[in-house]
Amino acid sequence: MVSPLSGSISPLPASRAACAALDAQDPLAPLRAKFDLPEGVVYLDGNSLGARPVAALARAQDVIAREWGHDLIRSWNTAGWFELPGRLGDRLAPLIGAAKGEVVVTDSTSLNLFKALAGALHMQAGGAGAARRVIVTERGNFPTDIYMAQGLAGWLARGYTVRLVDSVEELPAAIDADCAVVMLTHVNYRTGYQHDMAAMSAHAHAQGALIVWDLAHSAGAVPLDLHAGGADLAVGCTYKYLNGGPGAPAFIWVPKRHQAAFAQPLSGWWGHANPFAMGPEFAPIDGIGRALCGTQPIISLTLVECGLEVFEQTSMEAIRAKSLALTDLFIALVEARCAGHGLGLVTPREHARRGSQVGFTHDHGFAVMAALIARGVIGDYREPAIMRFGFTPLYTSFTDVWDAVEILRDILDNGAYDVAAMRGAVT
Amino acid sequence: MVSPLSGSISPLPASRAACAALDAQDPLAPLRAKFDLPEGVVYLDGNSLGARPVAALARAQDVIAREWGHDLIRSWNTAGWFELPGRLGDRLAPLIGAAKGEVVVTDSTSLNLFKALAGALHMQAGGAGAARRVIVTERGNFPTDIYMAQGLAGWLARGYTVRLVDSVEELPAAIDADCAVVMLTHVNYRTGYQHDMAAMSAHAHAQGALIVWDLAHSAGAVPLDLHAGGADLAVGCTYKYLNGGPGAPAFIWVPKRHQAAFAQPLSGWWGHANPFAMGPEFAPIDGIGRALCGTQPIISLTLVECGLEVFEQTSMEAIRAKSLALTDLFIALVEARCAGHGLGLVTPREHARRGSQVGFTHDHGFAVMAALIARGVIGDYREPAIMRFGFTPLYTSFTDVWDAVEILRDILDNGAYDVAAMRGAVT
Repeated sequence: MVSPLSGSISPLPASRAACAALDAQDPLAPLRAKFDLPEGVVYLDGNSLGARPVAALARAQDVIAREWGHDLIRSWNTAGWFELPGRLGDRLAPLIGAAKGEVVVTDSTSLNLFKALAGALHMQAGGAGAARRVIVTERGNFPTDIYMAQGLAGWLARGYTVRLVDSVEELPAAIDADCAVVMLTHVNYRTGYQHDMAAMSAHAHAQGALIVWDLAHSAGAVPLDLHAGGADLAVGCTYKYLNGGPGAPAFIWVPKRHQAAFAQPLSGWWGHANPFAMGPEFAPIDGIGRALCGTQPIISLTLVECGLEVFEQTSMEAIRAKSLALTDLFIALVEARCAGHGLGLVTPREHARRGSQVGFTHDHGFAVMAALIARGVIGDYREPAIMRFGFTPLYTSFTDVWDAVEILRDILDNGAYDVAAMRGAVT
Repeated sequence: MVSPLSGSISPLPASRAACAALDAQDPLAPLRAKFDLPEGVVYLDGNSLGARPVAALARAQDVIAREWGHDLIRSWNTAGWFELPGRLGDRLAPLIGAAKGEVVVTDSTSLNLFKALAGALHMQAGGAGAARRVIVTERGNFPTDIYMAQGLAGWLARGYTVRLVDSVEELPAAIDADCAVVMLTHVNYRTGYQHDMAAMSAHAHAQGALIVWDLAHSAGAVPLDLHAGGADLAVGCTYKYLNGGPGAPAFIWVPKRHQAAFAQPLSGWWGHANPFAMGPEFAPIDGIGRALCGTQPIISLTLVECGLEVFEQTSMEAIRAKSLALTDLFIALVEARCAGHGLGLVTPREHARRGSQVGFTHDHGFAVMAALIARGVIGDYREPAIMRFGFTPLYTSFTDVWDAVEILRDILDNGAYDVAAMRGAVT
């Protein structure tokens, strides 16, 4: 039986006990113990900052007390600090359909996007796309992606511009003969809309463009196959669904077929073919290492591994199945139990077009979200008027979904939110 | 009494006990207890990776367990994560003669140098230096500085080149009417040579150039006054003398007089005037924040504070006095007790031209350093043939100096090093 509203759970659970019964059958339920979550909190913001793996505390103690404090400078070799970006990249690779030697964990998503865009423009400039001068992206893309593209375009030789497209429907036509590179975020940070990667990549290629994918809201959230999806370059975040820690270094993927042609202006010593020869001319190392720049924040970087380890105990397919069940349930329960309160779903109902988050608009979305957070249901708010709820199958239960909706219903039924509340940064 | 060799300690201590007597009079000696150093090690590599502040372990536990694990996304506001780059910058500022609101701790030194160089070129391009197309630096500068300048110059519009100068003596003439920006590392990573910042800045300005200073081997090592020194922009490292942790985020200084004109291509959302408005056009924030780019690695960043706290218990003047005493003593003892072994001092004897490190060449420098490390005296090796010893007055004692020299003497007297040893990365 399939619910007409949503797709995966039917009949709609009518009680907390019914949700607890779903939890009892959930093969991922035991993985919640791998995370340290506070009592009394329903955490639906793992799409902004993933929860803390239990293992991170002991790992931090080891890297700080032993590797840094005791072994000191020797740890660059003995603890493999130099190799961390590549080692973590290899461990992350299966989650995105990448091969070993194609991913490094390093720097921020913004910086990696700058490198990827520069690399794509460089490939075009040296080939059949030499006359193309436009970077195409969505106006609704995550702002820093647009800003980085604007920064790159504005400073580069050859006069590039960034073309902002207003809707997904207008994208195909905007990818024209002037377009050098398409830059898209695979799952939209606000709406949870998931692009059809393979179709959009194929269209870009058919028009002679290259395509760069930002996987910030996809990696660890939805199954990905960058090779099958026709991506040229990709970047992503480790501190959301991958649970790498606040602001943990991001990743960049350069497939082997593009590595020899890949060049980027942030040419620091970690990307040098022979950094300890200390020569005065930059010469990029072969392979993915040329996407590296400067020395990495080792403690933050190390902890990324604690998040990745958890994924090795399940599969992206199992995660996706539960993700759809959770988001289906949330949508259905909200629509059933909070009806008449003016909530508007902004997330696609179609599974193939949905990430692992759900957004509802409400005229007083900011105030309602503040009230939810005060009651222990942590989502976040995004302009304009969107309450955003992230579902992370590794640690979110069906009971969590029930509890969140009941608290939302209670707040709305009782008008228990302060519309005069100041808007602040709800990240 | 002043030693003819070195300047600050006379007569030369003739025994370990004499060095212990110096330690007993050392006002900085109590600060050694602020660091966790392993037993049996003389650590003379704090110029590469500073020692671990004792406070870092508890601070890491708090940021991981409480701020990340318990408070989760709320910590962006409640724990002040967003403000960390500026808060740490303000705390670092007194060490370099900067004002509050002029420094942020963020990204890597390489990336900050890219921003600083781009910012300086931008200022020139918009003013009297519009025709200038050359970045002047030293061939012996730290390689990543040169690589980043090459990357920037090669990718920018307007066709810049990087001019490598072979010696300090040739620098003044190389700063000519074509020179847009001079980029110098204040204390040379290999030799410990310290530039005369004020004189070189004044010369650059007299020639119509701007000057960017890299303080990687200066901050926390020597007193700095960027304003009095006439610097235009500066960057530096927190994981060397500032003891911020392996690969900890670096810093960038933009003085208030240049902030309005400062622009750089790594225009990420953290540098936006209103990041949570999520608008599609980049607009830089007023002040030092425009030197920020993407989300920062919070755990590594937080621990920088533990290193900075220690400096607030002393002064750069006290640190400098001890630094010169330590390096004087090391030079004098090595020259007295290891005479005849072919060691060659590469570090200036003149105090004003010396940082807080000492380098000696030896034909088998790599093998001798490997033997020293095996015996617990941790320095490092830099091509060509240089054994490099860093002296960090916060935790290095005069007895440490004695012990290091005695072990070096023993190794050299007995030829107790393996010249066939493979060269590897001694960082």
